[in-house]
This record gives sequence, structure tokens and C-alpha cells, in this order.
Amino acid sequence: MILRDPVHGLVAFEGDEEQIVVSLLGTPEVQRLRRVRQLGVTSLAFPGAEHSRFAHALGAAFVMKQLLVRLRAIHGPLPDHQRVSEERAREALAAALLHDLGHGPLSHLFEEAIPGAPAHETWTERVVLDPSTAVNRVLSSVDPGLPARVVGLVHGRHPLPYLARAVSGELDVDRCDYLLRDAHATGVRYGLYDLDWLLRSLRFAPDAGASAPALAIDGAKGLPAIEAFITARLFMFQQVYLHKATRAAEWMIRTVLARAVEVLRAGGRLDDVPPAVWSAARGEPIALGDYLELDDGVLWNAMHAWERAGDPSLSDLAQRIRARALFKTLELFGEQATADGRERVIAVARDVARSRGFDPRTHVGLDVASVEPFGGEAAPLMVVYAKGPARPLHEVSFLLGRLAGQVLSRVRLVLAPELRDPVIHALGL
Amino acid sequence: MILRDPVHGLVAFEGDEEQIVVSLLGTPEVQRLRRVRQLGVTSLAFPGAEHSRFAHALGAAFVMKQLLVRLRAIHGPLPDHQRVSEERAREALAAALLHDLGHGPLSHLFEEAIPGAPAHETWTERVVLDPSTAVNRVLSSVDPGLPARVVGLVHGRHPLPYLARAVSGELDVDRCDYLLRDAHATGVRYGLYDLDWLLRSLRFAPDAGASAPALAIDGAKGLPAIEAFITARLFMFQQVYLHKATRAAEWMIRTVLARAVEVLRAGGRLDDVPPAVWSAARGEPIALGDYLELDDGVLWNAMHAWERAGDPSLSDLAQRIRARALFKTLELFGEQATADGRERVIAVARDVARSRGFDPRTHVGLDVASVEPFGGEAAPLMVVYAKGPARPLHEVSFLLGRLAGQVLSRVRLVLAPELRDPVIHALGL
Amino acid sequence: MILRDPVHGLVAFEGDEEQIVVSLLGTPEVQRLRRVRQLGVTSLAFPGAEHSRFAHALGAAFVMKQLLVRLRAIHGPLPDHQRVSEERAREALAAALLHDLGHGPLSHLFEEAIPGAPAHETWTERVVLDPSTAVNRVLSSVDPGLPARVVGLVHGRHPLPYLARAVSGELDVDRCDYLLRDAHATGVRYGLYDLDWLLRSLRFAPDAGASAPALAIDGAKGLPAIEAFITARLFMFQQVYLHKATRAAEWMIRTVLARAVEVLRAGGRLDDVPPAVWSAARGEPIALGDYLELDDGVLWNAMHAWERAGDPSLSDLAQRIRARALFKTLELFGEQATADGRERVIAVARDVARSRGFDPRTHVGLDVASVEPFGGEAAPLMVVYAKGPARPLHEVSFLLGRLAGQVLSRVRLVLAPELRDPVIHALGL
Amino acid sequence: MILRDPVHGLVAFEGDEEQIVVSLLGTPEVQRLRRVRQLGVTSLAFPGAEHSRFAHALGAAFVMKQLLVRLRAIHGPLPDHQRVSEERAREALAAALLHDLGHGPLSHLFEEAIPGAPAHETWTERVVLDPSTAVNRVLSSVDPGLPARVVGLVHGRHPLPYLARAVSGELDVDRCDYLLRDAHATGVRYGLYDLDWLLRSLRFAPDAGASAPALAIDGAKGLPAIEAFITARLFMFQQVYLHKATRAAEWMIRTVLARAVEVLRAGGRLDDVPPAVWSAARGEPIALGDYLELDDGVLWNAMHAWERAGDPSLSDLAQRIRARALFKTLELFGEQATADGRERVIAVARDVARSRGFDPRTHVGLDVASVEPFGGEAAPLMVVYAKGPARPLHEVSFLLGRLAGQVLSRVRLVLAPELRDPVIHALGL
Repeated sequence: MILRDPVHGLVAFEGDEEQIVVSLLGTPEVQRLRRVRQLGVTSLAFPGAEHSRFAHALGAAFVMKQLLVRLRAIHGPLPDHQRVSEERAREALAAALLHDLGHGPLSHLFEEAIPGAPAHETWTERVVLDPSTAVNRVLSSVDPGLPARVVGLVHGRHPLPYLARAVSGELDVDRCDYLLRDAHATGVRYGLYDLDWLLRSLRFAPDAGASAPALAIDGAKGLPAIEAFITARLFMFQQVYLHKATRAAEWMIRTVLARAVEVLRAGGRLDDVPPAVWSAARGEPIALGDYLELDDGVLWNAMHAWERAGDPSLSDLAQRIRARALFKTLELFGEQATADGRERVIAVARDVARSRGFDPRTHVGLDVASVEPFGGEAAPLMVVYAKGPARPLHEVSFLLGRLAGQVLSRVRLVLAPELRDPVIHALGL
Repeated sequence: MILRDPVHGLVAFEGDEEQIVVSLLGTPEVQRLRRVRQLGVTSLAFPGAEHSRFAHALGAAFVMKQLLVRLRAIHGPLPDHQRVSEERAREALAAALLHDLGHGPLSHLFEEAIPGAPAHETWTERVVLDPSTAVNRVLSSVDPGLPARVVGLVHGRHPLPYLARAVSGELDVDRCDYLLRDAHATGVRYGLYDLDWLLRSLRFAPDAGASAPALAIDGAKGLPAIEAFITARLFMFQQVYLHKATRAAEWMIRTVLARAVEVLRAGGRLDDVPPAVWSAARGEPIALGDYLELDDGVLWNAMHAWERAGDPSLSDLAQRIRARALFKTLELFGEQATADGRERVIAVARDVARSRGFDPRTHVGLDVASVEPFGGEAAPLMVVYAKGPARPLHEVSFLLGRLAGQVLSRVRLVLAPELRDPVIHALGL
Repeated sequence: MILRDPVHGLVAFEGDEEQIVVSLLGTPEVQRLRRVRQLGVTSLAFPGAEHSRFAHALGAAFVMKQLLVRLRAIHGPLPDHQRVSEERAREALAAALLHDLGHGPLSHLFEEAIPGAPAHETWTERVVLDPSTAVNRVLSSVDPGLPARVVGLVHGRHPLPYLARAVSGELDVDRCDYLLRDAHATGVRYGLYDLDWLLRSLRFAPDAGASAPALAIDGAKGLPAIEAFITARLFMFQQVYLHKATRAAEWMIRTVLARAVEVLRAGGRLDDVPPAVWSAARGEPIALGDYLELDDGVLWNAMHAWERAGDPSLSDLAQRIRARALFKTLELFGEQATADGRERVIAVARDVARSRGFDPRTHVGLDVASVEPFGGEAAPLMVVYAKGPARPLHEVSFLLGRLAGQVLSRVRLVLAPELRDPVIHALGL
Repeated sequence: MILRDPVHGLVAFEGDEEQIVVSLLGTPEVQRLRRVRQLGVTSLAFPGAEHSRFAHALGAAFVMKQLLVRLRAIHGPLPDHQRVSEERAREALAAALLHDLGHGPLSHLFEEAIPGAPAHETWTERVVLDPSTAVNRVLSSVDPGLPARVVGLVHGRHPLPYLARAVSGELDVDRCDYLLRDAHATGVRYGLYDLDWLLRSLRFAPDAGASAPALAIDGAKGLPAIEAFITARLFMFQQVYLHKATRAAEWMIRTVLARAVEVLRAGGRLDDVPPAVWSAARGEPIALGDYLELDDGVLWNAMHAWERAGDPSLSDLAQRIRARALFKTLELFGEQATADGRERVIAVARDVARSRGFDPRTHVGLDVASVEPFGGEAAPLMVVYAKGPARPLHEVSFLLGRLAGQVLSRVRLVLAPELRDPVIHALGL
């Protein structure tokens, strides 16, 4: 198979071990990812951000293919059982392609809004392991143990820990692809870094114990490449992933979904309710088949139907989100951003909402986001030199040493535009 | 308003006359374009081609903004009434944004498949002129004559013909944007050309009659820019727009829609039929509101429901398209590609289909595409020099002189994969 | 060795067979190419065009490395002696790096202006074969026959004709690199094409005789890639290589050099005359060592000294070229561009020059350029399909069929700016 | 005038006030910059880094043109005398073009190596103010006070301080252009940032005193743009400007120049000594005309001649640099990198050199580089918000707050390759 990709150019999966990618692409579970946008509702703020999880999954598998080339160029000194065999390569490619297979619609909104809904990682595991899925059949037909090993990789567990971290770690194929792809689609240039150079900078840490060699950065060649990779992610968080309009839209949709479940639980009637939402409303577990029926279109379709809901708050929010009449945000700083401060602020804002005839639970709220752009992993990335011991990246890097462990956070009040000025006044902002 | 666009970078609409763009973006009719992909089902062949008509509409308006800057830099010698006034600029920007407003879902498939469905240009006109739409209200509130003038521009009619051709002509803002955007999204690099240089190459033809100055290319600076623009379009047709997998998918969806209408007309029952399709099935005109409810998601949702249709051909096709189990194509050349030849070929292929138990109308068919990449316009693009008369581009250009009037065509048999080998055998291919 | 290249990104020569590139890069003859600009005086018209032949030579070797990967992916069906052995690869890499080794300074100006000066291809051969050069020593130390085989490749002769054509042919590594590099440096975007896709499109023609398999284009995947490659070259000729300011500057420098030789032959005195020019003036052959001393800096230095020459025409031209006070051009069309017409035009122009006190041989002249962008090769590029015979590219390609054999030509009068208006008047232009 | 630039695309200087750029480009002093590479000998490490100071000067003037557009979009609220008049614009454009006019050859090597040689800023001032130069004539003919005002701008002094800082400050047109241009030429992608967005993010600080409004960053839109700009410069220092091979080559050339002056002072004979070097050797001031004769070619030519010098160290170094046989570097860390430690290290290394028959002053040395990537300016960049006071960038930015005032330094021993192993051994490294 040979494809054009806007990020990686010519993407080919042709070798024997790469046939697993071609086979998996033919399954309905992977095809479903075409109907889920990688960045959820981000296109409401960045009109170009319309790319799907399908394109990203393909890209992640392609980065893995390139990484395997590098691994094989450097695995010579390792004992046989720690090298990248064809079998290991096959499961790594499959895991890269499938790492987000269980992702719900509209980014993380579904799992966050629906009470009791399992996280997407759990769904990935279920899809891969359940014998009813085509993905499971494809994997099992190669080797009955393959589904379990792929799930292990996705969860960061594998006999070769360096492969596990390449699927899920601080420097994994997921991030390698999404930073470039999200930058390409949004037009934000800050997510760019040099993938070829980064892969070329990888070495096995020489002093790693025989049981678990780890990938490390070549200090002589690779520092700027890894620094640019880490700062690219920081920039994307600041510029795109935590963008106020996107966050406001996400808050609105979470509220719509949660309110719809409440309405249903209270015996209310809503049209076009997806079976998975029905199950959640009834407090029943969501069936795998029902979950896989969910995609962006299904949720948008439901929210469109709910514009005519009897519940006025639900109806109002559903209308606003479709018309892109987004809520406003007020960022909180200093004392107001502390745990106590937020409580006082939201209480004031809810009073204002109530006094103006708005539902204080659906038309005003808090949105708290926080991320640690670098250094959160238990085992830090290591840097190796021609001589001397491997050293942690944060000790070696001029730039990253200053970033390590720092937390970037945004605390925002989200509220209907009609409430913005009165709330500002009430809070004395 | 200031936005990031992956194609044009920083896109701003801030001047007084540009407020019309901001106002129109707030209407539900323009927001609907977010739910229609620019290239329909092309993402089945080029995974990156997931961009919406909304992003393209914004881009076209931005190209118009840049074109207006150029026009004002060169309109000095024209009499006042032929210059770009603020009023003219406003209607040009609105027309650029709205030029595809009436586009149906899934590219041209809806209007081609549904018997009696008006073309998308007609719907654009209706949306703009109908007083019930928000777009009409925005335009009318500026000037009651504005909707009609915008429609005129979209149809290529205007007191300033050079503006009309800039909205709809061989070198219009639509093409200027879509070539770059489709190239960016698909990763096909052949659609690139130099927009800045092309705009900068525009002049008013000096010998144009006083009643209608026309834009022309500066022969000293602009030939390669316009040549690259024309060949970019040729390359995009060859590589993307006429790609065999896309054309096969489009053929399948047209067949699904047409068959669904037949089923309904015959009194069959189908779930999730959009009201617009119901109207068509009943032979009634489609109401504007029903048309505007259509988008890619609505049609995909309907086709998903029709996987369970009683009609086996409809059900089969619907299942295949969702699973991306696309039909195959056989390109016809020489005698077989002539009008008579095609008839013989399709007759043979249908016989094979019938003998194998497939419906010869839904599982085999002809797909004929033809395009004239350059030279089809009544009034050719002219080239001007410091001295001497303006000359037609095809006379001046080494490359385009050889392309003018040539027709690129593709004649293909489209058929279920199961039929491919038997049909090849029967046709002796 | 691992390098950053602005065109190809990460450029590495690390394998055993690639060591030849590293060794050759260390020779003074290859290092000399750092002092010769790839596009001569083109930077007078395109300020960015300052890249050296050294950078291009490296790039051509890197394209060869990538081509070898492709050749080895497809050479399986060939008999052993026709495959790419390590030995063949080594000579192909060396030939790619050295293909322009004998290039003189300032593009082709030296060999065109100095009477009796051998062409640069001859100098390449001499440098490679002469036992006194470091290049020869490096090659011979690997294999005494290597210098001769490398020369053969550069001249298009080799036991594997497909390798010879890859070094010197319609689709060779030289063109593959220079189109991209010249486009990158000038900022002209028309020289871009998709190198990865083009290489991936190569196949061996199945029906080629056993004695000489030829590379061909895969008709199913590669047509747009090769079409874009060919038109890129056409665009670069139109836009850059035949640019009027560059051509005028080149005409001036050729005239300076030729006049300097005349002055020296007549016993005149000039400062800073390079030994190679002295030899030419004396009618003696140029010694290899003297030739290798020539570079752009040496010639610019000499021309700077000649600003103080006793010969007023020489002095005047030398001053103008350093100050970038370039001559003007008048392009001739129709009858005036024919062989007879040109003679009449130049005679008139020279009369004007004479009557105004200018030397008619140094301050006015003709510049004739002509190029066949496609189809000039004896053995046409072939296109292969899954079925059926290979077909010539010009028969298969919609675009190229129309270009094949067409000649692009520019006939220009070059003259001092002071003469422009009087000559236009005298010619009735 | 309209040009193609590989960094900025279409570069035009056409308005009335922009004619000053066109006139200045015609002067020999500006044309001289074509013969000086922007990055000196960096092309020995990054083969693409062959761009000239001329291309950069043009680029800086173009960035100024774009900045002026932005300034005029925001200067409305300022009193008339603080706005950008045509006169102010003209001097800003001239200063941007001329800011490096006095730059010597081979980056800063000449002024650093030649004892008593004025810094390049002094030469810029002299060229602009000296009535004998064409640059002075062009400026004076517009306005006799213009040369002095241009010099003021280049030195950061002007009645409009925001203009002065735009020519010479933490965020000036020089950096804006060179980061992009050096990244483009080297192929290092880390120097990229979003120029359009950065310019668009500029505001006047509202609370600035009436006497001196200052440019500030719009906190709502511009933080990532300025952060990427600052980190781009950090990356370029780490990756390119402080590259060990470049620094070694620079150290060698400084040593060559200093040793040549010593040889001349001691009465030794050298060929092709540029008059400016003669003056320095005699302890006389360098004449302006002699300084302007210097360019990269002149120095390379001299160093080539000095390969035959009687002084063996000079001859050896000159031969090595031309053959790109560069010295090696050993980076010092910890105690060895302190002032005292360095002295000990260099003493040991010189002993080794002496004992091996090398001149300890020419074949071994220290190279110390240090740079403060952010925060070194007296007046910090400020950030403004819709409400509230302007705040210093380092207080606002998550990333830059951690970088402010940090110093990046590299301490390296530079030595002939033959000395590397013995010195490592002697130092116990």
C-alpha cells in the first residue's frame, strides 16, 4: 500500500511485517476513526483543524516504521532477544496504528461527560481483545497472542520496554505524529520540529541493565532536536489545545451531554439518543457495539435533535453550539485561581446567572486545565555521550532544565455572553 | 477578526468593508459549510483530504481581500465608476465567501443523483435571495440591493465584469484558493503555484473598451505565474479530482441515492430518510429549509441506516461504502472509449453481472469524466506588455499554447471487485 | 558523515560503500567547488542564488544514494551482473559527486569566452584521470580501474546503461538536485516537484533486452511526478536560467574575458591575470594546476583589477559589472529573430553604437539561447504498465505529448543602457 | 523594484518613500555586501550557509517595510509628532538596509583579529557619514540631515525610540530577518517562527509616557509568537552560531590574520596583503577606501597566497583552512571551564604542543563564547492586555520567565588534530 500523506509525504506499507497495517486498515473499527476528528471541536477556533483520528493513526504507524529502521540500525550490540525481530516489529506497528482505537467522539468529551463511561484506553483494550471485532480477528489470525501483546504495548507494558515507551511515553510515535499533524492542519507553525533528525539522534543507553536497554538521545547531535520536540508540545498546548474558544465549546458540549443524561434519567424524552447514551442514562454498562456506533456525526446529529428538547437549558445550549455562538471565558489569576478562590468566584458568577434567569449549572462554570509539558515521567529521558555516563535530559539541556516539572495551568470561568459584563462587574475584575 | 489558516497563514478581516465577512460567518447557512467536506469522499483515497467547504469559503474571501489590494493599486487610470469603491469591495468579498453556499453534501453527488434536484448554483441563489435566511438578512441590512448583486457576481454578472470574472472565471478566487488548499490537505505538491506573484502580475488591459476594462497578465513578469496556475489545475485533475478510487466511491454513492429514491417511489420503507430526499422521491420540489438540513453527516447517517434496507442491492452498496470496500475501475482506451465502444463494453459487463447474480444497474456502470484544463472560456485571458497590443495567453505562452482547447478525459468501467476478473475475461482485456 | 542540507534535510553518508563520498569530500579539487557558485552571476537577478557547486555536488550524491535504494528494491528479477553491486554503487556515488568537478568559474563563462579553452566535461575527465590529483588518488586506492569507470559514467557510458543515464540523462541525479536547489535558493517555486514519489515511480522496463535493462516510469503511479519534473525544468529555464538580467551580465563577462585575452595578445598589460588566462592568451594549453586555481573569486579579483586597464572598453565593462550597472536587453521576435533578421538588427545597433562613440564589439551584441525542454534524447523515457508493452512518455502523457521536441528560444540584443533608446528608434521598435 | 526572495517571497519596494531603498541598492558600498557571506565560514559546517549580507540587508529592509505597515495601523492614538511620517519611514528603511553596511569580511573575524581595527559599527557610521561615499550622496540628496539620523537609528538613538529599537533592539528587523534566513540556508528548522503573526501582535504600550511610546506585545494574541522568536534564537545559537566546527575555523582564521600582522611588523614578506592589513601592521589607521576593498574573496585570496609564507605556522594554518582540515575542539565543563581552570588547561595543552614541535600560540588555544538568549536589554519587552497595566515579558511568559538572564556559554580548547589525543591524555579527560 502506498499513500500520500500531507505530513509525511509518501507513506508506504509494503514489507512483509507491514502487511499487518494494511489488514487492520480494512477493519470497520479502524475505518470508524475516519468519523472522529483528531482535535474534536478545535476547528471552531482553527478552521483547518478538521483532520481525523484515522489520518493520525496512519501517521503514527508510519513514524513507527521509521523508528524501526533506526532501531535496527543501532540494535546490533544488543543480545538477540532484545533486538527488533519481525514479530516485535509487527506488534509495534499494530500498536502504533491502534493506540487510539477506542477513542470516543469529539475528543475526550464523551468519556468526561457521561457518568460511568469507561476511559478511551479501556475501550481500546476491549476492541482489541473482544473476539467479535474484526481487529481482533486480524490480529489473532497472525498469532493468538498478538491481541494481548498489542494491548500491553498500548498500556506501556512489553518485554522490550523501549518499544512500550515508543508507543506510550514522553517521546512516542503518538506525539511525534500529532504535533506535526496538528501544526499542519491548524497552520500554527510552533508545533514543527525535525522528526528525521530526532529519530537519527536515538541511541541505546550503554549502561542500561541487560534486562532493559532504554532509548536515549545522542548528546553530540540530538539536543536541539529533542528540545524543539518538547517546546513544540508546550507551544501547541498554549496556542491550540488550551485555546479559550475550544475550551469553551468543549465545556458546552460536556454540559449538553451531562444534561441530556439527567433529562433521560428523570424520564424526559429526547430524540435521536444514541444507544450508548441510553445505557449510561439507565446506569447500565455500554455495550461494545453501541460504543463503536458513536462518532462525531452521531453526537452532532443528537445535539441537533436536542435543539427541540423540552428542557430549556439543554435546548438553548444545543442551539448555541450548532450556531457556533460560543460561551465566553474569563481567565482567573493569582488568588482567584486557587482552589478556594475559584469556589468564591464561581459562587458569585452563579448568583449573577440565577438573578438574570439563567440556569447556574448550565450557563456558567469553571474550566481548569493543567499540564506538565516536560518532566512528568517516572523514568526521565537520558542523554548519552561518546564518553561518560548517561545523564538525565533535564540536567543536560540549557532550556529544558528550566522547564522540568513546571506546570502550565489555565483556570477560566466559562459563561454565556449575556453574563460576561455583569459577572465582571460583580467580581470587580 | 483574525484567524490562522493553514494555507494563507494569518487571515484577518478587520477593515470596515470587511465586516460583511465577519457578519456572514455568523449565519447558520455559512456555518453549515463546516459540515460539508470540500472534496466529498476524496479522503477515502487521500486520507488528509478532510477539509471543509467552510475553510475554503474563508480562504476564497481572503484571496479576494488580497486581490482588492492589487486592484486598488492599479485602478488609478480608470474612470471613477470603474474603480473598486468600498461598496464594490463589499459585494466582492461577500460573493467570494458565499460562492458555494448552496453546495450540497458529498461534493456534487446529491444534485447528480437525485432526479430533479436543482444544481448547487441555484441553491446558492435561493439562499442569498430568500428573505427567510440569515445570510439574506445580513446582506439586506447593509443595502437592500446587495443580495441581488452578490448573486449576480456569483453567476458572473456585474457592472464591473472584471470583478464578476474574479468570482467566477478562469482565474477566480475560488480556484486560487482550492488549488492551494486541496494540495495542502492531500499532500499532493503539484497544486502549488505562487499566489502572491500571480496577483502582483495582474494589470488592466490598456486597450479595453471604456465600458469594460479587463484584468490581464503582465507579460514581463507574470507568465510563469499563470502557467504554473493552469498546469497546477491540470495536475490536480489528473492526480486527485479524477482519481480512480474517488470516482468509484462517488459512483457508488450516486447509485445508493438514486436507488433509495426508487425504493421510496415504489413504496418501500427506509429509515432516516432526510426530508429533502423524501420530497425528491415524491416528485415534489425540495423546500429550502429541508435542503439546508442536508450535510455530509446526514447523508452518511442515512446510508448507514440503509445498510438494513430490504432492497438487497441498496443494502449491499451501503455496507460496502461505509466499510470502504470500494468498487474497482477498468479504464477504457481507444475504440472502447468511444461512445459506441462504451455501449458495447457496458452491455458485456452487465451480462456478466447478471450471470453472476448481481444487479447490473447497481454493481456495474460507466464513469465518464472530461475536463478542458485550459482555454474553454469565451473571452481568453490576455497578456499585456509595456508596448504593443494585448495578446491572448495561448498565443504568448510556450506551454499553454500547446494545451489550449485540449480535453482530458477518463472513461472507466466501475464494478464490484467480484466482477473484475470475469469482466476482464469477457472483454478480452 | 551526517550533514544538514537545506534541500534534502538530513544527509548521511555512513555505509561502507558511501565512504567513497566522505573520502572525496576531503580532496582539494572537491573543496574548490565551494568557491564556484552553482548559478554563476544569477544572484545579480535573484539575490538568494548564492549556493555553490559544492552544495549541489553533495546533493547529487545524496539523490544517487536514494536512487540506489530504489534500484535495489526493484533489481531482484534482473540477472546478477545487471544488479547494483556494492562496486557499482560506489562508482555511481563517486560519479554523482564528481559529475561537475571540472566546472570553471562563473558558470560556463570561462570556457565560452576563452578561445581554445576545453569544455568543463573535458576538465572533469582530466582531474579524475590525472595521477597528480587527490581525487584520482582516492579513487585509485579503492580500485585502479575506478577513475576510468567514473569518467565513463559522467560521460554516459557504463556496462549498466541505466546507471550511466542516472548520472547523465533526461532524468539524472544532476537535474533532480539542481531543480530543487535552484528553486530553494532563488525563491522561485516553480522548480519544485516530488522527488520521493518520482524515485518510487521507477521500474525496470520488463521488455528491455537482457543486455540492457532500462529504467522506466510506472504508468499507474508516476505520470504526474515525471510531468511535474519536466515542467519544473521548463519553468526554471523561463524564469531563471534565461532571465534577461542574468543573460546580460553573462554576456558582459564573456566580453570582458575575451577582450582581456585580446589585450594580452596585443602585448597590453593587465594586473592580476590568472595563469590560465595567460596561457590562453599565448595560445598555449592550460595546465591542469592553473585551471584548478580558477574560481569565482579569482575571476572577480581579476576583473576588479582590470577596471584600471588601459583599454577603455575593457575598463568600462569591468567597472559596470562590479557595480551591477548591467546592460539592457531587447528581445527580438518574428522576422527579427531569424538568422537573417538578427544580422540586420545587430548591424543597425552597431552603427548606432559607433556613431555614439561606443565600441560596437563590446557595448552591443546578440544573445541567443535555445533549449528543448523535453524530448531531445535519442532514447525516450518509457512508461510501463501492469499489462501491455512499455510506451514512450510523450505518447502517454497528456501534457508532455504536447511539449515533445518543442524548442524554447530567446533572441536578445544586449546593449549599454545609453544605447537603448537610440537603437529602439533606429530599429523602429 | 520587485524581487524574489527565498525567505519573504515577493519583495517589492515601489512606494515613494521606498525609493530610498532602490537608490541605495545602486551604490558600490551596498553592492560590496554581495561579496561578504552573512555567516562567514559557517558553510564549512553547514554547506548551504552561503548567503550574503546583501540578501540579508534586503530582507531586513523588507521586514521594516512590513513593520511600518503595522505601525501605521496602530499609531492612530499617538500625537502627530510620534507617528510614522513619510520622513521617519524613509530613514527607518534606509537604516534597516544599511545596519550592517560596515561589516568586514568573514563575519567578525577581521575586527577581532587585527589589532586596533575599529568595530564594524564604527565603519557603518563612517561609510554613511563620509561625503566621499555614494551612500552618503544618496542620503544627503534627499535631506542633508538624513545620514546623521540613519546613523542614530543604527546606534539605537532616535526621536522615536520605538523606531530605534526596531533597528537595533531585542526585537529588531535584523534578528527578524537573519533568524529566518539562516534557518532557510542551513536547513536547520529551529530558527523558524511566525513573522506575520509577530508583527501583527505589536501594540503601543498604553501607559508609556507621552515622550516615548514603546512597542509591546499583545498578551491575548502574541505570546507564542514572541516566545517562538526568542527560543528560535536560542536554538540557532546552540545549533549553528556556536557550532564547534565553525568556531574552530574562526579561531584558525583569527590566528592566521593576527600572525600575518606580526610577520609584517617583524619585517617579514607576504604576498597579496590587502592595504587595510598593511595599515594595521604599520600601526596606522585604516583608510575608509582600503576598508571597503575588503571582502571575503580578498581575504581568502590573501590566505591562499600565505600558504607559501616563510613563517611555518602561518603557512601551515593557511593550508589547513583552505583544505578544510579544521582543528578539533574539546569542550570544557565544570571546574575546567572556570577562569582559573581554563588557564590551567591551556597551559597543559601548550606544553603538549611545544613538546610535539607545534607553535603553542598558533596550534592550540581557547575559544570562549557566551550569550544571553533573553533578558539582556535594559528596557525589557512589555506585554499589554485589554485591561490592566503592561507587564514585563519575563513575568508573563511561562517559558521565558524561566530563561530570563540565563547565560549560555561554551568553553572549548581548539587544537590541531595531531594534538587531540595527547592533550586528552595529559588532561586526564
